[in-house]
Amino acid sequence: MFERIALVGIGLIGSSLARVIRRENLARHIAIATRSQSTLKRAEGLGLGDSYSTSASDAVRGADLVIVSVPVGSSGEVAAEIAPALKKGAILTDVGSTKASVIAQVEPHVPDGVHFIPGHPLAGTEKSGPDAGFADLFDNRWCIFTPLPGTDPDALEKLSEFWRRCGSNIDTMDPQHHDMTLAIVSHLPHIIAYNIVGTADDLESVTKTEVIKYSASGFRDFTRLAASDPTMWRDVCLHNKDAILEMLARFSEDLASLQRAIRWGDGEKLFDLFTRTRAIRRSIIEAGQDIDVPDFGRQVVEHPDAKP
Amino acid sequence: MFERIALVGIGLIGSSLARVIRRENLARHIAIATRSQSTLKRAEGLGLGDSYSTSASDAVRGADLVIVSVPVGSSGEVAAEIAPALKKGAILTDVGSTKASVIAQVEPHVPDGVHFIPGHPLAGTEKSGPDAGFADLFDNRWCIFTPLPGTDPDALEKLSEFWRRCGSNIDTMDPQHHDMTLAIVSHLPHIIAYNIVGTADDLESVTKTEVIKYSASGFRDFTRLAASDPTMWRDVCLHNKDAILEMLARFSEDLASLQRAIRWGDGEKLFDLFTRTRAIRRSIIEAGQDIDVPDFGRQVVEHPDAKP
Repeated sequence: MFERIALVGIGLIGSSLARVIRRENLARHIAIATRSQSTLKRAEGLGLGDSYSTSASDAVRGADLVIVSVPVGSSGEVAAEIAPALKKGAILTDVGSTKASVIAQVEPHVPDGVHFIPGHPLAGTEKSGPDAGFADLFDNRWCIFTPLPGTDPDALEKLSEFWRRCGSNIDTMDPQHHDMTLAIVSHLPHIIAYNIVGTADDLESVTKTEVIKYSASGFRDFTRLAASDPTMWRDVCLHNKDAILEMLARFSEDLASLQRAIRWGDGEKLFDLFTRTRAIRRSIIEAGQDIDVPDFGRQVVEHPDAKP
Repeated sequence: MFERIALVGIGLIGSSLARVIRRENLARHIAIATRSQSTLKRAEGLGLGDSYSTSASDAVRGADLVIVSVPVGSSGEVAAEIAPALKKGAILTDVGSTKASVIAQVEPHVPDGVHFIPGHPLAGTEKSGPDAGFADLFDNRWCIFTPLPGTDPDALEKLSEFWRRCGSNIDTMDPQHHDMTLAIVSHLPHIIAYNIVGTADDLESVTKTEVIKYSASGFRDFTRLAASDPTMWRDVCLHNKDAILEMLARFSEDLASLQRAIRWGDGEKLFDLFTRTRAIRRSIIEAGQDIDVPDFGRQVVEHPDAKP
């Protein structure tokens, strides 16, 4: 599909792309760039690309598709660095979890004749780094584009076809709506998960050992999201601030109301909410967005410290 | 192990007990009672017991082990009903998620010569009803007893042995500590999950269809807990009020502080929290309390509405 694809950043997303590009034969040459010497070495050890560089400019030179997969806070810096080296006619895209901020950071640097198409594959796990990637990551997941006005339709179609070949389904929306939508479906859940794990970590009345030992009764579900990459999530919080603060305000308002119902023993209100939320789980399963087996189909794990 | 075990309540926990009791041959006779005629019929259809009754008194008559598995708010009522029918020397236990409240409700009714030992198996899924049970549910999970002062050690040992044969590991603590511990590891996570799903359900700026469609980016993790049995969780909220309000206050305080860090762009604070929480996930995995595969080992699900 492409002569040369440059992957700037080779973490979970970048390295999954490298693997699926190779498997589906989507480029003749995969050029990998990352600033960290040790990460680059690891990528090379894994045989993820055809050339390796700590210089993003070197990697993007001559590339007809450039995919930037770095924490969103680094987007502007990377764009400034690679801009002079971008080939005329190249497609430049990213995978960042926030879009308005990435556009504001990147757009000013994009040279004439380069097609900048902001993108966001809704895919990932709580793991990070080049070892964490896998070729199936984008299978049946959504990739959202937030194209700028005047985007070349051929370039958009070519990039869409690329992502479809990676396994994804394509959606298009404006950047503000993307940021608001992701704030509720992704950013707020992660922030809440980080917060509750922090709260549990700080208790004096219940020991950390007890929190860990009994975590299977609910708590452990949150620890997965709360194990996500700290740099990535710091940047998401800083770069989708308004939408996140809006969602946090609504969440806190609702929680205050729920807390009041608990304090005053309003069983009916509790029952109504707990029934309504059950219906949403059903819709998610009906929409094929989660599996309908108890406990996510999680296997029973052995307790090495148990059975005295 | 026992001549006759009476199971009062035959939902997820009761029906899992019925299955493991049968498999491990722990009783000559399993007597099942539930107030709902349709649930009882279903239990009978599944062949879970040897006798079936809508009267708890009938079921417990002559039983040497009685296990009450009903929403904690019904504990007192059930105890009052069965008390006159309990056999001298019988062990009476429960599986409720709160312990101080269950003790307060049940203890006044317990006749002399009956061994009341409050218990709580930390096991369950988001499913409920007699069809949801399975014999492996208690495998390698913790069962916590909160014995009253003066509990007969032989009765406690016999009940412990019963739960061990069901697959569980045994812990003992006082009821107040149990309630505080469960408030953080189980009750708060459920309440937070219910709340965030409710918040998402109420939005106008993002449609319900979008919330569902893009839920795999984090939100769906919360919908599992938020699909738990509404009656059970209403009762937990009403019967562990003080400990839950204490944990909610701490959670909200921490969230306000996190929100402030987001508003003022305090990246260092965000990074520190997000790093600390990652370590807790690692401890949980090291303690064998969750599996170390990305995304809980969840299988990729097909999106029936995708691929236009």
